[in-house]
Amino acid sequence: MINTHYNLLVISTSTVHGSGYMDYIKPAVKDFLNGRELLFIPYARPSGISYNNYTETVKEALATIGVTVRGIHEYSNPKEAIEQAQAIFIGGGNTFLLLKTLYELGLVETLQATVAQGIPYMGSSAGSNLTGLTIGTTNDMPIVYPPSFNALQFLPFNINPHYLDPIEGSTHKGETRETRINEFHQFNSQTVIGLREGSWLHVTNGTITLEGTFTARIFRAHETPFEIESGILHENIYL
Amino acid sequence: MINTHYNLLVISTSTVHGSGYMDYIKPAVKDFLNGRELLFIPYARPSGISYNNYTETVKEALATIGVTVRGIHEYSNPKEAIEQAQAIFIGGGNTFLLLKTLYELGLVETLQATVAQGIPYMGSSAGSNLTGLTIGTTNDMPIVYPPSFNALQFLPFNINPHYLDPIEGSTHKGETRETRINEFHQFNSQTVIGLREGSWLHVTNGTITLEGTFTARIFRAHETPFEIESGILHENIYL
Repeated sequence: MINTHYNLLVISTSTVHGSGYMDYIKPAVKDFLNGRELLFIPYARPSGISYNNYTETVKEALATIGVTVRGIHEYSNPKEAIEQAQAIFIGGGNTFLLLKTLYELGLVETLQATVAQGIPYMGSSAGSNLTGLTIGTTNDMPIVYPPSFNALQFLPFNINPHYLDPIEGSTHKGETRETRINEFHQFNSQTVIGLREGSWLHVTNGTITLEGTFTARIFRAHETPFEIESGILHENIYL
Repeated sequence: MINTHYNLLVISTSTVHGSGYMDYIKPAVKDFLNGRELLFIPYARPSGISYNNYTETVKEALATIGVTVRGIHEYSNPKEAIEQAQAIFIGGGNTFLLLKTLYELGLVETLQATVAQGIPYMGSSAGSNLTGLTIGTTNDMPIVYPPSFNALQFLPFNINPHYLDPIEGSTHKGETRETRINEFHQFNSQTVIGLREGSWLHVTNGTITLEGTFTARIFRAHETPFEIESGILHENIYL
């Protein structure tokens, strides 16, 4: 059962090939936020960008759809900023850094409590990894050591964002994404949803809907992975 | 300064495209082991393979060059198996699982002490990640949570095995390897050596030599990455 208060937008990637930051997803974001101000959490720092520069990118992108954005670092008290937020967005970058920062600032429980009350939460890439049970299916490099891999756990499964099909004809011997997720399932039982770039999950009223242009790939422990089409995800897919 | 007792073979990948397990590196392995029996540590379990099956693969491959292999799981006391080993090989798989298992079995210090006495250590992929300071530049998925990211620390830098150049014309928005290592350097100061598949480091008499067919890519914090040719690595490259 998904908490019926949850309002989540779980986005695979902020940017798809050939267009600007969040361009492809702006209509969905506009609907989702419905006029609310957005608290942006830039802790994942893609390429080590500063909080200010990252937040500026988001402000500029979302200004075009009339969304007002404020960075959490602009507040003296980040806990209060979350508690008083109208809507929250955690952007992509490095998942280990993001989760470590949230634990260090004592914000994990605050986010859980706030989002459980129905405050809309939007995550992209690393911010989407956090909506699952653990960050155990992130694609990121473990550049820092977080005190736990447990994530925000809004959803009873794990997300693999930027899901990438095996590259045909590749001569590289590093593991494919599917091999990695298979290894994950040797030690973890939860379902993993591979979200391709251009897809997202929309969670509201206790239902999860796959939106965007692509099918998603479902990995269940010890079963053959399969594809699902856009639309409502039934519990027997992810539980 | 590298401990002059170290005898290390730090291999990017066990297998290159188009040939069998370890085929391309057998001549170097034969020279390196020089008739010694090999203790194999299969804890990284690629694709979740069993210790027995993984060890069997290594036994078969190295039998062709006359190397006798025994898996550490065949001993009742893994600590003693390491202490009494003539040479040690840690194979590839999942770096998080490998390091977690070593910590849980209390083998990290045993390996450090044994290898510091001059017992030859060979690592491939995940086993090569362990020769560096931390596993912070592994490519693997964090499928389990180790008690630390600190590795065996034979070498005063980090290894990135299976180093992969950015794929020209890729439309995928996940980070390139270079972007990931750049993020690592926002929070860590050690040099990272990107070892392409088909290359390895040979450490003996306190010197490190890049061997194999390819150049390696050197990432120093806050400097432009550069390539080095095969041959001896001078300290000013990695310190």
